[in-house]
Amino acid sequence: MSFRIFVDLAVSTEALEMLQAGTKGHQLVFPQKPIASVLSAPERDPQFATADIAFGQPDPQAVAESVKLKWIHVSSAGITRYDTPKFRALVLERKIAVTNSAGVYNEACAVHVLSFMLAQARNLPRALHSRTATGTNEWRGLRSSSSTLRGQTVLILGFGAIGRRLVELLRPLNMNIIAYRRKARGDEGVPVITQEELPHILAVEADHIVNILPENLESRRFFDATRFSILKPGAVFYNIGRGATVDQDALLEALRSGRLKAAWLDVTEPEPLPDDHPLRAEPNCFITPHVAGGQVDEAKELVRHFLKNFGYYILGQPLCDQVM
Amino acid sequence: MSFRIFVDLAVSTEALEMLQAGTKGHQLVFPQKPIASVLSAPERDPQFATADIAFGQPDPQAVAESVKLKWIHVSSAGITRYDTPKFRALVLERKIAVTNSAGVYNEACAVHVLSFMLAQARNLPRALHSRTATGTNEWRGLRSSSSTLRGQTVLILGFGAIGRRLVELLRPLNMNIIAYRRKARGDEGVPVITQEELPHILAVEADHIVNILPENLESRRFFDATRFSILKPGAVFYNIGRGATVDQDALLEALRSGRLKAAWLDVTEPEPLPDDHPLRAEPNCFITPHVAGGQVDEAKELVRHFLKNFGYYILGQPLCDQVM
Repeated sequence: MSFRIFVDLAVSTEALEMLQAGTKGHQLVFPQKPIASVLSAPERDPQFATADIAFGQPDPQAVAESVKLKWIHVSSAGITRYDTPKFRALVLERKIAVTNSAGVYNEACAVHVLSFMLAQARNLPRALHSRTATGTNEWRGLRSSSSTLRGQTVLILGFGAIGRRLVELLRPLNMNIIAYRRKARGDEGVPVITQEELPHILAVEADHIVNILPENLESRRFFDATRFSILKPGAVFYNIGRGATVDQDALLEALRSGRLKAAWLDVTEPEPLPDDHPLRAEPNCFITPHVAGGQVDEAKELVRHFLKNFGYYILGQPLCDQVM
Repeated sequence: MSFRIFVDLAVSTEALEMLQAGTKGHQLVFPQKPIASVLSAPERDPQFATADIAFGQPDPQAVAESVKLKWIHVSSAGITRYDTPKFRALVLERKIAVTNSAGVYNEACAVHVLSFMLAQARNLPRALHSRTATGTNEWRGLRSSSSTLRGQTVLILGFGAIGRRLVELLRPLNMNIIAYRRKARGDEGVPVITQEELPHILAVEADHIVNILPENLESRRFFDATRFSILKPGAVFYNIGRGATVDQDALLEALRSGRLKAAWLDVTEPEPLPDDHPLRAEPNCFITPHVAGGQVDEAKELVRHFLKNFGYYILGQPLCDQVM
């Protein structure tokens, strides 16, 4: 059986060749307009209606109007665009499988968080700008404001594949690791807390708060003024999930009051933050421009991941990274 | 038996109280001039001659002239000042034990190197200054110049306690780890190479070169123009050992030629590097001012470590971190 695969994904020549070779005998269809980014809204394309498979970031409305679609492989780890009750009901009714590319991004995202945590622990933003001599007060200050993370507590919110991988990376640092997720499954390998315990953990335990919450109706502005106001003084906040899960005014206030020692953000709302946004001027707010999932040969990794799943699909085997 | 302990170490009030409590019944003697830094040359002090134990950075000449000294506990991990054939012969003949504070600094130094490696892998110096939108060429460039370190090779030179700890921290990142040391002992847990194999490994294997060599006659300018000139193109160099083990002109040339992608240095020669030193102007040279061993409560950790060893000393048990 030959499948028609709609691909709205910006790929390098090398990745395209890999995709063509791996789908020989099937039909690849590309949108008539080029794609700027996985995060921008997709363009409607008439060819979509007849696709069996979509690889990329298909428009939810186009999915609703399609007639043959049976599988969507989303080219990102985030599935905000699709994570609505309406869309979930649609794909359930139409028996459309939805997979994402989490497997491609977990590793890079977990390593990115670790780089943030270590840059903070070793005070790199200040230390890399210091030209002080040994023995000065500045030198002593730098040394005594550095830490090894040992014995400190990290709370990971949103405990999927990135969180699991982060736990593996953090293990040798001998931190206390706590996970927050909607429902504990018992296989997390670390203590899991749910909503009732969260205020206590935020107020007295968490030195580091790693926000990997996906964006959905429940998580919007999850970190609001109330939650920021109870944080353990001196805590550090990291966000590599989605900017919309944070009330940025409340974050700013927490930084200004000194309750929050620092914030490290790979995601904001909007992206990029305007140059005159007050978080840009906060000395202890460090922002990277949504690059946590980035890695050498990212497009090739995305294609490789899709082709692995395509192999399963053809054989009727369970897909990996299935989210709906 | 009561010991006279000469302490030339800048300590906080809290650390001093801990030292006094832990040496009750013995006599603490402090130098008449205050100490600026463990790295500056010590002042001669007449009280030293009658000490049984020295804790800090005693002057080697004062050690030679002392009459009762039986144990020196050096308050740093580096022992450059003492690591000479003459001094080794002296302490051997006089049966003076020499211990260092490696146990205090291993953890912080290993974590500092890891923070360098991850900041480089995630391209933090560039990413933290970028305000680009997703989908731009700058954004793509940032993402595709980021890595997870997976599958890359790191060569660790000088494989003592810091190197061992670094191996533990790097394990979950799935890198290939190789150690270089003068003599392989077989208990390293990673492949060990010696001098003959070094050129080959530098030329074709090592993506990351972590220099933790101590400073001594053999290691002076270990990284010279010859070694820098054969490096695998795109390698990254890290130094948290001693600045004197590197020919900085050769390092500069390797950076300028592009053969070396970046250098991350916690130690230089001199320290600090003058503001107009050309390494300061190199865009891919990142320098912290000898703070790798720094940590919250460093003085307390030093005192705690000394007191542990003092306990062993009193009981005639083997000392920890003995280096001579």
